[in-house]
Amino acid sequence: MKAQRVDMFVCPSATPADTSGLQQLADSGKIRPDTLVALVGKTEGTGFHDDWGRVWADVALRDWTARFLGIPVDEVAKQVIFVLSGGCPGVITPHIAAVTREWVDVPDGESRGDKRLVVGRSGSEAIAPEEVGRMGMIRKVAEATHRAMSDAGLTDPKDVHLVMVKVPGLTTASIRDAESRGTTVVSHDLTFGPEGAGVYANDAAALGVAMALGEVPESSLSDDVVRRNWDLYSEVAMTSSGGEKRHGEVVVFGNSSGSQSPLVIGHSVTRDFIDAQGVRDALRSAGIRFQDGLPDEADLDRLIHVFAKSVIPGSDQIRGRHITLLDDADAYQIGKALGGMLVASVTGRTTNYVSGGERNSHQGPPGGNIVAAVVRAD
Amino acid sequence: MKAQRVDMFVCPSATPADTSGLQQLADSGKIRPDTLVALVGKTEGTGFHDDWGRVWADVALRDWTARFLGIPVDEVAKQVIFVLSGGCPGVITPHIAAVTREWVDVPDGESRGDKRLVVGRSGSEAIAPEEVGRMGMIRKVAEATHRAMSDAGLTDPKDVHLVMVKVPGLTTASIRDAESRGTTVVSHDLTFGPEGAGVYANDAAALGVAMALGEVPESSLSDDVVRRNWDLYSEVAMTSSGGEKRHGEVVVFGNSSGSQSPLVIGHSVTRDFIDAQGVRDALRSAGIRFQDGLPDEADLDRLIHVFAKSVIPGSDQIRGRHITLLDDADAYQIGKALGGMLVASVTGRTTNYVSGGERNSHQGPPGGNIVAAVVRAD
Amino acid sequence: MKAQRVDMFVCPSATPADTSGLQQLADSGKIRPDTLVALVGKTEGTGFHDDWGRVWADVALRDWTARFLGIPVDEVAKQVIFVLSGGCPGVITPHIAAVTREWVDVPDGESRGDKRLVVGRSGSEAIAPEEVGRMGMIRKVAEATHRAMSDAGLTDPKDVHLVMVKVPGLTTASIRDAESRGTTVVSHDLTFGPEGAGVYANDAAALGVAMALGEVPESSLSDDVVRRNWDLYSEVAMTSSGGEKRHGEVVVFGNSSGSQSPLVIGHSVTRDFIDAQGVRDALRSAGIRFQDGLPDEADLDRLIHVFAKSVIPGSDQIRGRHITLLDDADAYQIGKALGGMLVASVTGRTTNYVSGGERNSHQGPPGGNIVAAVVRAD
Amino acid sequence: MKAQRVDMFVCPSATPADTSGLQQLADSGKIRPDTLVALVGKTEGTGFHDDWGRVWADVALRDWTARFLGIPVDEVAKQVIFVLSGGCPGVITPHIAAVTREWVDVPDGESRGDKRLVVGRSGSEAIAPEEVGRMGMIRKVAEATHRAMSDAGLTDPKDVHLVMVKVPGLTTASIRDAESRGTTVVSHDLTFGPEGAGVYANDAAALGVAMALGEVPESSLSDDVVRRNWDLYSEVAMTSSGGEKRHGEVVVFGNSSGSQSPLVIGHSVTRDFIDAQGVRDALRSAGIRFQDGLPDEADLDRLIHVFAKSVIPGSDQIRGRHITLLDDADAYQIGKALGGMLVASVTGRTTNYVSGGERNSHQGPPGGNIVAAVVRAD
Repeated sequence: MKAQRVDMFVCPSATPADTSGLQQLADSGKIRPDTLVALVGKTEGTGFHDDWGRVWADVALRDWTARFLGIPVDEVAKQVIFVLSGGCPGVITPHIAAVTREWVDVPDGESRGDKRLVVGRSGSEAIAPEEVGRMGMIRKVAEATHRAMSDAGLTDPKDVHLVMVKVPGLTTASIRDAESRGTTVVSHDLTFGPEGAGVYANDAAALGVAMALGEVPESSLSDDVVRRNWDLYSEVAMTSSGGEKRHGEVVVFGNSSGSQSPLVIGHSVTRDFIDAQGVRDALRSAGIRFQDGLPDEADLDRLIHVFAKSVIPGSDQIRGRHITLLDDADAYQIGKALGGMLVASVTGRTTNYVSGGERNSHQGPPGGNIVAAVVRAD
Repeated sequence: MKAQRVDMFVCPSATPADTSGLQQLADSGKIRPDTLVALVGKTEGTGFHDDWGRVWADVALRDWTARFLGIPVDEVAKQVIFVLSGGCPGVITPHIAAVTREWVDVPDGESRGDKRLVVGRSGSEAIAPEEVGRMGMIRKVAEATHRAMSDAGLTDPKDVHLVMVKVPGLTTASIRDAESRGTTVVSHDLTFGPEGAGVYANDAAALGVAMALGEVPESSLSDDVVRRNWDLYSEVAMTSSGGEKRHGEVVVFGNSSGSQSPLVIGHSVTRDFIDAQGVRDALRSAGIRFQDGLPDEADLDRLIHVFAKSVIPGSDQIRGRHITLLDDADAYQIGKALGGMLVASVTGRTTNYVSGGERNSHQGPPGGNIVAAVVRAD
Repeated sequence: MKAQRVDMFVCPSATPADTSGLQQLADSGKIRPDTLVALVGKTEGTGFHDDWGRVWADVALRDWTARFLGIPVDEVAKQVIFVLSGGCPGVITPHIAAVTREWVDVPDGESRGDKRLVVGRSGSEAIAPEEVGRMGMIRKVAEATHRAMSDAGLTDPKDVHLVMVKVPGLTTASIRDAESRGTTVVSHDLTFGPEGAGVYANDAAALGVAMALGEVPESSLSDDVVRRNWDLYSEVAMTSSGGEKRHGEVVVFGNSSGSQSPLVIGHSVTRDFIDAQGVRDALRSAGIRFQDGLPDEADLDRLIHVFAKSVIPGSDQIRGRHITLLDDADAYQIGKALGGMLVASVTGRTTNYVSGGERNSHQGPPGGNIVAAVVRAD
Repeated sequence: MKAQRVDMFVCPSATPADTSGLQQLADSGKIRPDTLVALVGKTEGTGFHDDWGRVWADVALRDWTARFLGIPVDEVAKQVIFVLSGGCPGVITPHIAAVTREWVDVPDGESRGDKRLVVGRSGSEAIAPEEVGRMGMIRKVAEATHRAMSDAGLTDPKDVHLVMVKVPGLTTASIRDAESRGTTVVSHDLTFGPEGAGVYANDAAALGVAMALGEVPESSLSDDVVRRNWDLYSEVAMTSSGGEKRHGEVVVFGNSSGSQSPLVIGHSVTRDFIDAQGVRDALRSAGIRFQDGLPDEADLDRLIHVFAKSVIPGSDQIRGRHITLLDDADAYQIGKALGGMLVASVTGRTTNYVSGGERNSHQGPPGGNIVAAVVRAD
């Protein structure tokens, strides 16, 4: 019988184009051309439109991976999924996490007592511009999530702890295409502002995950609820969108008793923007031991990585008190930095994947955010 | 025998000019013209040079106070000390804290078993431009700190938990004055950049407090150590500077068995920029009960206020990992926001006084910051 | 016969709350309670949401005006129109322009040979939230523009050179109100982003002026053209919107042979973002003499004021070359600063009214902007 | 007899790493490995510390050049000088200008009637950290300027129209080195703030050029005048500094009757920040024909490139009126954008080299800036 053996290696990046950490992993045999399935990272820079750090990182990583795999650059995306989130304001260490999956032989019928990390991937059907941010996208992402679960060997949604999704956004060209065919699009705003196509796409993708996992019943979903009914949300979906894609990509992380991975994943959510308890709960969910209400420092050595969203709240109140975050000229950057601090203040380390850039989201509960943690099993 | 009875009331501000909270305190008799000694607050806005929120707040608060005291605006400063810190990025609720002190009769020889909050004030001798950021300023602030302690009825430095100081900075005019008399000044840079006159003034003031409290021996102080030897610092000094002043102002907060205040103060420091334990220690120092390593939520009702600095570190490493905060275009604003998050994530509330704007400081240990907490006694 | 005598006085502002220039005008009799009709100015600050300079200026100016007119503050708006535009980045001197209008007796039948400045005002009917950014608003602004022209004594649209309009935007509350009545609103985005309610309101107001002046035939107007068909525009409308209002306000500036004003107004447009010729044409239109293709410096003494928009272009190309303005994190602020430079480099002075904050607009031609100039007649 | 034939080709850059324009020049034979002497460009991005666009461009251009020249990357700098200025806010088209120089045979004794473009290069002696920003640097840059003039075949300083200089700045390491040897450094501030090591280095380099060209007599130069006496300045020096270098690099552009170049260079200065006349004068100096006081649009076809500084003024007044540029949070970026507008509004094109980032400078007169123009000869 074949069983997955998933591993994850986190390399700090000295510059956006720094691939030395990956090269060391390759040299030591920890990652191999046939095992590398995803590169997920945070890149240094502003995180805004004028952020060339993310673009440079993308080019440099794809180049390196093409050489590593011995294939042309434009075929890299078929084998390795890239999730690069721009902007490391404050206390977020720029880094790349390499995810590997190999298939190992285990005696038939033998199964671990405990569940370990598995990963699964899938691409969605092509998503038309008129489907972006609407039920069409929701359904196609839901379907792809099911297939990625299947690829991971997961059947119970409770075993799913993190779903990273990339979907198409809208562009001037795709809007023109849609309208020339007599259809409409969800927004003409190509920004990530509150009514921008970017956040509609991200949020439809999140609802697609929620639908697939049964977090939201299909019957309560419609075009009208996207970015309107914040009570509908996923607790495990981290999504992003870009105009250049036509297909969605889904990566599912979960735990399975069929896995031979040395790692375990867990997750939780924060209930509001200052909720450190949500971060602690994510660590606890992944199996970190606690002492006196706090993570046992010795046991934090087992922590491999934390993935967190830092969507800024739609409200100007936290626990009944007024905040002015929404008025800050660079609210998204500050919000991302604050998410980084919330995680770092709990984990005691700054190398955390913290992604932001939206106001309100179906990724996590209203005002709160998703946190997932990967831990080396005891 | 006369004993102090010090109280503190924290009013959120809906706008920079919002004095309605103070007016309510006045209407209810909680603050009286003869008891109001200080207004300490955070004002909404960018916190930069172009921040008119702080200026408007200053004008509005002085106007209100003048009417409240029945004196001309330009005499207000003689009776009430104003400490307004601009910029509430992220999760810092704009607010004004009113500090009152009245003298109540207690039977001679009677003393409380426990120590309670006292406050004391003093002005320093005039500080010449050539003394700014140097030993002249250090000595004059030290002297004023002694007098403020005396005004507070404090003799043991261990009882001092917070010293707020305002000192003169440099201006084009004061530099010209100094140089016309054949003296030199510490810097021609009028900004708060790393070699700016503003931070030299702030840091000499902090060393003055450290000298007064014996945190740093006078023998190790000289012009040359200011902003050079970061091992010399105060754990209780929060300082600011402005070109318009000629005298320093010092407000000391501490605990005394001679006080009839319902409040107690405590403090601690963070050891680095993500050190939530330092914030917890400050709450514990002030008497907040802990349960399972965390502040007991029920007991947090007794928390009146937290005062914290958020000086950004001079290093680009936290616990051995690289951060890019120093490269952020708005590092000071993000750093202030991060300090706000660190405190809020522990106290569960956003109404905290968090002031920043410097890189490296003698206010707190290298890389860390000062946190003081005021609590209603059990 | 009564004839208008309109004057305009421009006062630099040392701070947002500086009313000393107005007070001097009042003391010298240049403005009187019965002649002051409008205060139009630029206020220092960021020009963003967190800009308290504009708010402070608004409060201070209304206070001063109330005292000057001897009426309560909340009645000031009935007599004097305030147009305050926040943000003076770069080379825009903060200032307030006071506009006065008095009625003087002239012998019946006597008329000047030349046309001079007149001003007219009107309020629109109440504009419902569902009308904001749509034909309802367009029609009501058009109607109000006709009434303001009539108040100014103008009948020929060619004599109109500047129409300042303030209209209601949308708020969370007004959207809820509209939707509770079964209607829809133009946008749920309350920002000034490209699909925000603020720019829809501004642009419907501009089309309302264009309709009133015959710049755009009513037959080509519909809900669908707003912020879609940029070939429809006004060359004289400068509009702004705010959620707090229910009625539009219109101020028309033009030239009339029935005026006894010492001033004349003219206007032109820039054809793209670097078109200094458009600024020169506006000065020429108002009667400034040119020498060698440039404004005669001696004659520039007659220039009273320039009013210009600086809407940033929707395209990333200027004259066939790529620019990155749209990617600048603070594109609106930089765009406003650039508009200020374009005007200042022609007029040789920095005290110009330059307002921005939008991307694309029906205020001026695609990629270009409106410029109006007021000049003391020869 | 050998004569220089200098040419200049300006390629817009679609991204920071775009070398397609250079490749086309190479493919067409316009630039050759033995003729390429300098690449001077503006790169897209913020222009701040967190600007990875400039770094990426630098890496990509050196890689391309190494391949083009057939030499290792770390030897590229010996053959080709790179001057990359980060940040294209507003209306500055990102671009790379390639400068070529070849030696052609001309009959002995034959000389052109008119002067044409020449270019010369040299490296300075090593500059020690204690010399940075002081006379040591001034003298070494002056010497190198003389040698670059000689390399260009220029003897009369009047024929020099642009001198681009790169010098070492200070770093933590080089300061430590200097102090360990008992010497001092000009500043401990490693920023480009008003007292930062970066601007001291830039300004000493500018005074070095001024000394070499006789713009400032050596007798009036001393350590004390650097960034103090703004009446001392060069009208042709554009300088930059970086910690990583030990030697200065100088490129001189001028006109010589011994040149066979099809190009001519001219220059002028602006007298203040809004002085469009200074830009026009630079074009006129280079030979652009004017019509009615403005550059003749047809003749602007001959304009190859404009090089301009946009140092922001130290004063908050322009022509007697107050501006708030110095209070803008991003004053350097806005200042650079404004310089771009001033040039573009005169040249009618956005592809101009405009570099900024300092407040006050010895590069150009107080408050004004340097402008040089390269034109194809009639």
